[in-house]
Amino acid sequence: MGNRIIVIGANAAGAKAAAKARRIDPRAEITVVDRGEFISYGACGIPYYVSDTVADVKELMSTPVGVVRDAAFFRKVKGVEVVTGTEAVAIDRQAKTVTLYERSTGHTVVRHYDRLVLATGSSPSIPPLENMGCPNILTVKTLEDAQLIKEKASPDKSVCIVGGGLIGLETAEALRERGMAVTVVEMREQLLPGILDPEMARLVEKHLQEKGVTVLTGCTVAGFDGTTRVEKAITTKGEVPADLVILAPGVRPNVTLAREAGLTIGETGAIAVNERLQTSDPDIYACGDCCETTHLVTGRKIFVPLGSTANKQGRVAGINAAGGSSTFPGVLGTAIVKVFEMNAGKTGLTEAEARNLGYQVETVLAPAPDRAHFFPGAKPIALKLVADKATGRVLGLQAVGLGAVDKRIDAAVAAITFGATAEQLAQLDLAYAPPYAAAMDNLIVAADILRNKLSGHARGITPAAVKKKLTEEDDFILLDVRSPGEHEEVRIAGAKLIPLGALREKLETLPRDKEIVAFCKVSLRGYEAQKILEAAGYADVKFMDGGILTWPYELEKGARKAE
Amino acid sequence: MGNRIIVIGANAAGAKAAAKARRIDPRAEITVVDRGEFISYGACGIPYYVSDTVADVKELMSTPVGVVRDAAFFRKVKGVEVVTGTEAVAIDRQAKTVTLYERSTGHTVVRHYDRLVLATGSSPSIPPLENMGCPNILTVKTLEDAQLIKEKASPDKSVCIVGGGLIGLETAEALRERGMAVTVVEMREQLLPGILDPEMARLVEKHLQEKGVTVLTGCTVAGFDGTTRVEKAITTKGEVPADLVILAPGVRPNVTLAREAGLTIGETGAIAVNERLQTSDPDIYACGDCCETTHLVTGRKIFVPLGSTANKQGRVAGINAAGGSSTFPGVLGTAIVKVFEMNAGKTGLTEAEARNLGYQVETVLAPAPDRAHFFPGAKPIALKLVADKATGRVLGLQAVGLGAVDKRIDAAVAAITFGATAEQLAQLDLAYAPPYAAAMDNLIVAADILRNKLSGHARGITPAAVKKKLTEEDDFILLDVRSPGEHEEVRIAGAKLIPLGALREKLETLPRDKEIVAFCKVSLRGYEAQKILEAAGYADVKFMDGGILTWPYELEKGARKAE
Repeated sequence: MGNRIIVIGANAAGAKAAAKARRIDPRAEITVVDRGEFISYGACGIPYYVSDTVADVKELMSTPVGVVRDAAFFRKVKGVEVVTGTEAVAIDRQAKTVTLYERSTGHTVVRHYDRLVLATGSSPSIPPLENMGCPNILTVKTLEDAQLIKEKASPDKSVCIVGGGLIGLETAEALRERGMAVTVVEMREQLLPGILDPEMARLVEKHLQEKGVTVLTGCTVAGFDGTTRVEKAITTKGEVPADLVILAPGVRPNVTLAREAGLTIGETGAIAVNERLQTSDPDIYACGDCCETTHLVTGRKIFVPLGSTANKQGRVAGINAAGGSSTFPGVLGTAIVKVFEMNAGKTGLTEAEARNLGYQVETVLAPAPDRAHFFPGAKPIALKLVADKATGRVLGLQAVGLGAVDKRIDAAVAAITFGATAEQLAQLDLAYAPPYAAAMDNLIVAADILRNKLSGHARGITPAAVKKKLTEEDDFILLDVRSPGEHEEVRIAGAKLIPLGALREKLETLPRDKEIVAFCKVSLRGYEAQKILEAAGYADVKFMDGGILTWPYELEKGARKAE
Repeated sequence: MGNRIIVIGANAAGAKAAAKARRIDPRAEITVVDRGEFISYGACGIPYYVSDTVADVKELMSTPVGVVRDAAFFRKVKGVEVVTGTEAVAIDRQAKTVTLYERSTGHTVVRHYDRLVLATGSSPSIPPLENMGCPNILTVKTLEDAQLIKEKASPDKSVCIVGGGLIGLETAEALRERGMAVTVVEMREQLLPGILDPEMARLVEKHLQEKGVTVLTGCTVAGFDGTTRVEKAITTKGEVPADLVILAPGVRPNVTLAREAGLTIGETGAIAVNERLQTSDPDIYACGDCCETTHLVTGRKIFVPLGSTANKQGRVAGINAAGGSSTFPGVLGTAIVKVFEMNAGKTGLTEAEARNLGYQVETVLAPAPDRAHFFPGAKPIALKLVADKATGRVLGLQAVGLGAVDKRIDAAVAAITFGATAEQLAQLDLAYAPPYAAAMDNLIVAADILRNKLSGHARGITPAAVKKKLTEEDDFILLDVRSPGEHEEVRIAGAKLIPLGALREKLETLPRDKEIVAFCKVSLRGYEAQKILEAAGYADVKFMDGGILTWPYELEKGARKAE
């Protein structure tokens, strides 16, 4: 086996592949080629560089112990040659050569490889609109982008961010914190599509609004208006002032080089690879944002570009390219984002995704403090679990709130990877002490409710279904079982108040022939009410998932005499 | 099946069992008996009540939404009768009766049961020493204890805490924060025995010392000295001033009632139960601190009393006692504790536990920031993974540091529960964004090093083994591959400095016939150095696990000319 390895792309996946190949084969000749000038930087840190949370761009390019990862570092420490400012423009698979174009000189060289690793990354999927060439329309992908945004982001000016996904929301926070008037425009009916179900996304939207960000969902940008520079965006919901436009659309894999070389492109549009990350040419590997991977719940191919996956894949591609043996099984589509003080994330399938794939699902909405409620600093988070009704298998978790959502996501990642059922999730021996969790962790509580639902003991109804009943003036009783004090503070219009503690005594005030939907703050008392009423012979009783805390619609506020 | 259920004990397990039994059988007659006056409180919150972190004792007794869980609550909401101040003194299994002794009146009543649930809890295992009756010797188990401690804890007075386990350290923090001079006396050679391996425990000990707590390990209390009240503790390491003595020993299960009723007591000393939490009498269940459970890694019976387990077991015992069907598979011995700003926890087996059980183990010590190193607020944590050499199966994780250790513990809990190997742990699709983790989470990095070790690529040596070599003046080279700046700041005496970036050029300064042990701050560069030296033909090269960050011994500090 030959020992010339060329890696195309020097960010997370490429840099990792090169470093790992070196460790496997100390004598290989390893070259990394990148068309940019910066290598191996933390691209996910760019919004934090924009907000000045990260002051020095060098921090994004250094290792945790402060060593800057530049070409000299790779040469001296890793024994890897890095060539920047150079684009790979063609692969000749028969001759096993790559044609490299050096930008500064215009020179072209042809280099031989024994194994090739493609780590060509992804690019924002820019819509074809007028005036796109204007200097105040920018994207958020490279350090060069970030520097431009910082130059153009003046306080008290307005910015229109097109796209309400991860990068769009991170950038909204960054620019709001620089004092700008921020509008986020999202084509779909909700923020974070593909990451959160609508009612969970609504919690994030509320938080953005509280922070002074204007959110327009179900809103398409038709074009931009201005002369030498854009002054406003024209949208289906009217004009949006825009001294600056940030495009934060989804990304698409950079596959031109691979496609032109005749490599198979998968149904997702990314480079097709097997578990060893081999492309359709056994001497060419692909890793990171340019290739597709497998969803561990569905077994289907998906395209989920992410720095964490890129690192794992780089390791596998590097080992295999150097003659070792390693595999990458796939991902769960895990994602997480900080939006001001709110944390939002998911792993596995959302309810919408699961239903689209044909699963019969059961779901739970469980809001609760993120640690012992009596411990200072406890903050609310809401979990949404999605399970397969037939098997009880957990398909996904979403988590949104001011508290520690990442911990619950990560525990669910491990559980879902191993095919955990709601039963198994509920039994996990999670770490407990008051500063970290309640005696029953949020995940355990959610899994217990899920078990109760799957076994038929708990009968839930979604906030959306309750809202529909209210709107359509269905003849049902919406029963608030909170305390009079809680009811006075905030309530759902039309709800009847009977505090849970008084319910057994006041049964005569509830008709037996009507549907009853009970709720409280988080709906644990709502579930208690269901059980009390059922025991008393009421036939059609449910509780509303999540209670007041995750009710995504209007609430009445302030003192009102309890009914 | 009859419907009279008596639950003995009204804390976590008992209260949960009663509530769950009610949900399963709305018509059962359910009575909970407790010898104390407080019911269903968060006993784990007691140290935080002592420190005034939790101001009002009611907070410990209320639900997350602020409802106080007293007898009236249980009667009205749960439909469960609660009898406090009443001790169950005998069980007649033939007659199916319990004899109850009401303290205030001295009355005794005999009550019939169809199903009995024992949730009798545990008690501190107090050593038999002189003067134990003195009024200034207290334990930390009940709310009554906590109130006494608060009365007696004066600033500028001294307290001797006997026991360096979870409760001992939490109480040390609580009383230090009340301004007391605190000494912790621990019989074993390390703090948190059974929870952390010695080198991890040393990190906690250092932190306590930085906070002004005196720690005496390997130190036994021989007795207490004083007239009407203790004034000092007499220990094997001398006299310890003690205006107050807190006994924080391990706990033992309360099994007298069960034993006298002829129920089987397990080898752990706790009540033996099957997966349904049935005792040797099929009509009597046990849950919580009084019963033993199964370790999910070893399959052996263990006694690990914990509030989180008590809640899970209470649910299972309640369901089964009411005629339903549920099982409790076991635990991983997960534990976590906050000690001032430091967090320390474990799940599964420690290295010491695994070796005692006969496993051939491989271990990894991996310190790193708890999120992207460039993100403000990133704090260091050190992970120690323990794996079975033969199978690569992960046996346990310990985590210590100022950052988020609980998240890594919980992800490992789920992974270890399902028998994850190092390979599988390294591939988990954990949530990644800079505010939450590095692109390669601490757990992934640790698992990767473990994979490298298990495959023979990485050759580690423990800090303890290096210390032994230094002490015994072995002829080896301890090679510091950090930067000159890092070396000047802090270093291990006797180490030779060659920064990693210069290593390839300075090979001639290293003899080829000696053992070389490379290290850096966290030992990722140490591992790089091993690979570089091996590639250059050096035969006996290792790296030191964990690097400077987890070196548990003396360090030289301050400027010194680099060698």
